[in-house]
Amino acid sequence: LLSLIEAEDPAGQLGLMALYPYTGRAHLVGVTGAPGTGKSTLVNQIALELRKPASDRLADAGRVGVIAVDPSSPFTGGAILGDRIRMREVAQDPAVFIRSMATRGELGGLAPTTGSMAQALDGAGFGHVLIETVGAGQAEVEIARMAQSTVVVEAPGMGDEIQAIKAGILEAADIVVVNKADLPGAEETVRALRTAINLGHPGAGRGGNADPMWVPPVLRTTATTGEGVPDVVEALARHYRHLRETGMLLVRERERARREISARLREQLLARFLRRKGNGTLEDLVEQVAGRRLSPQAAVDQMLDEAGA
Amino acid sequence: LLSLIEAEDPAGQLGLMALYPYTGRAHLVGVTGAPGTGKSTLVNQIALELRKPASDRLADAGRVGVIAVDPSSPFTGGAILGDRIRMREVAQDPAVFIRSMATRGELGGLAPTTGSMAQALDGAGFGHVLIETVGAGQAEVEIARMAQSTVVVEAPGMGDEIQAIKAGILEAADIVVVNKADLPGAEETVRALRTAINLGHPGAGRGGNADPMWVPPVLRTTATTGEGVPDVVEALARHYRHLRETGMLLVRERERARREISARLREQLLARFLRRKGNGTLEDLVEQVAGRRLSPQAAVDQMLDEAGA
Repeated sequence: LLSLIEAEDPAGQLGLMALYPYTGRAHLVGVTGAPGTGKSTLVNQIALELRKPASDRLADAGRVGVIAVDPSSPFTGGAILGDRIRMREVAQDPAVFIRSMATRGELGGLAPTTGSMAQALDGAGFGHVLIETVGAGQAEVEIARMAQSTVVVEAPGMGDEIQAIKAGILEAADIVVVNKADLPGAEETVRALRTAINLGHPGAGRGGNADPMWVPPVLRTTATTGEGVPDVVEALARHYRHLRETGMLLVRERERARREISARLREQLLARFLRRKGNGTLEDLVEQVAGRRLSPQAAVDQMLDEAGA
Repeated sequence: LLSLIEAEDPAGQLGLMALYPYTGRAHLVGVTGAPGTGKSTLVNQIALELRKPASDRLADAGRVGVIAVDPSSPFTGGAILGDRIRMREVAQDPAVFIRSMATRGELGGLAPTTGSMAQALDGAGFGHVLIETVGAGQAEVEIARMAQSTVVVEAPGMGDEIQAIKAGILEAADIVVVNKADLPGAEETVRALRTAINLGHPGAGRGGNADPMWVPPVLRTTATTGEGVPDVVEALARHYRHLRETGMLLVRERERARREISARLREQLLARFLRRKGNGTLEDLVEQVAGRRLSPQAAVDQMLDEAGA
């Protein structure tokens, strides 16, 4: 089913339709941050930790799904393999399912099918679905819209903290992790991030959709040794509980549904419209716009006028 | 006109329609890179350099427009002011026009109206339009699609170069600049980037739309002193000449027109469709999807079926 969804085969969406009534039970966790922060290693450790029995957590984690979204860089090609190697510790656990996917030329961002793939894993009974993306800026927002809890990973000395804050990277975070906490400067980074969060809170983030009742914790980890990882898993469980108890889970659910329906409608209305008009009209207008005889909006007005209001 | 365009007032697009026949003469330059690389300072220096008379360049630079796209972070709010302060050197030149714009909650990425604003400056007779964006990953691709020449700014020691390459940041670059070249590690960064470009070339980047005849140069600058900046301006002129002489300029022009017409059609078809259906239908379906009674695609199918094929 995941392969059908990824290939955008209509059978993928048909399968998801059948599975959809069984979704809504997994905790969807996004893990994101700039390159070099050690995200993959952290995801690996979070998956390991989630697999340990823990009486103090809401429920047994059950199976863990990992979706690693790799930029499809022609410079490397081997990025997927690289992630797999880093994931090898969990790869031997049959209750952990790992799927690497490319981003189809959209660097950094999420592939358009990532959300559907997470839904499929949810419907298949995975207790946690971890979605890992590389990126800074745009990717954080995209993942925050798709996941229920978003972990933003930082590392000490990754450039100027003020710049990172300026770039608004924190706005998407439910939990902030300073990884590589054994490196010099970790304490300063933690402090700067805490100050920034306290200054910005509440009303920050998520495009006016912030959760005024949740102050994102700033945690320290050393993913290579696993230090601090139990605290991250505990914070995730706490955030999920918070979302359920405050009703924010349903609020975000509705937004996600609205966004996905709109995005799909947009694509499918365009495809239908262009099919009806024939491709020649579009190409003719492209030529006129490239030749500066028509502005892009004038071209659109012309197509829509012909189609009738 | 820029304010009308930014506010998405229909009068903005009407004004652009009138101006459009005069566009196509400016060199549209994107400048992008991760936070902390010194992009703003470099843009400042490039604008200063472009204003100097230079007999060896294709034409007089004429006026220079700068569009600085700042993430609209509620954490800072003062980002726009910050950029203006850094830009003060050029701000005193009446032939340099600087416009800061927010990103409307889309962190890092370009505001949807950035392209129209660049077109307006082009139509108003600016010889160069510099578009500066913060970001890594997604933003580079967006700007590479909008600009004719894209400068990707790196800095020494900004994390692991292999990671940066993995993230595919280079794919969007026509010119790579290692700024802060006075810092230790600059030479290694230049070398790593050159190797990566040579390995990846040709066929890299721009989603299969690479230019096999152009190998992106890797240049060193110290933007704070201006060192190396004339080489960047020279490389920009060379790239522009290359685009004109090989016909790539028109190829990219057509792609940009096709992409912008499609994006506008997509939005406007959706708005028209939802207006016709009434908002109640969408909200009802959102509720059903959030309640797991319907998958997102099933909701879309239902709306489209009702609308008739």
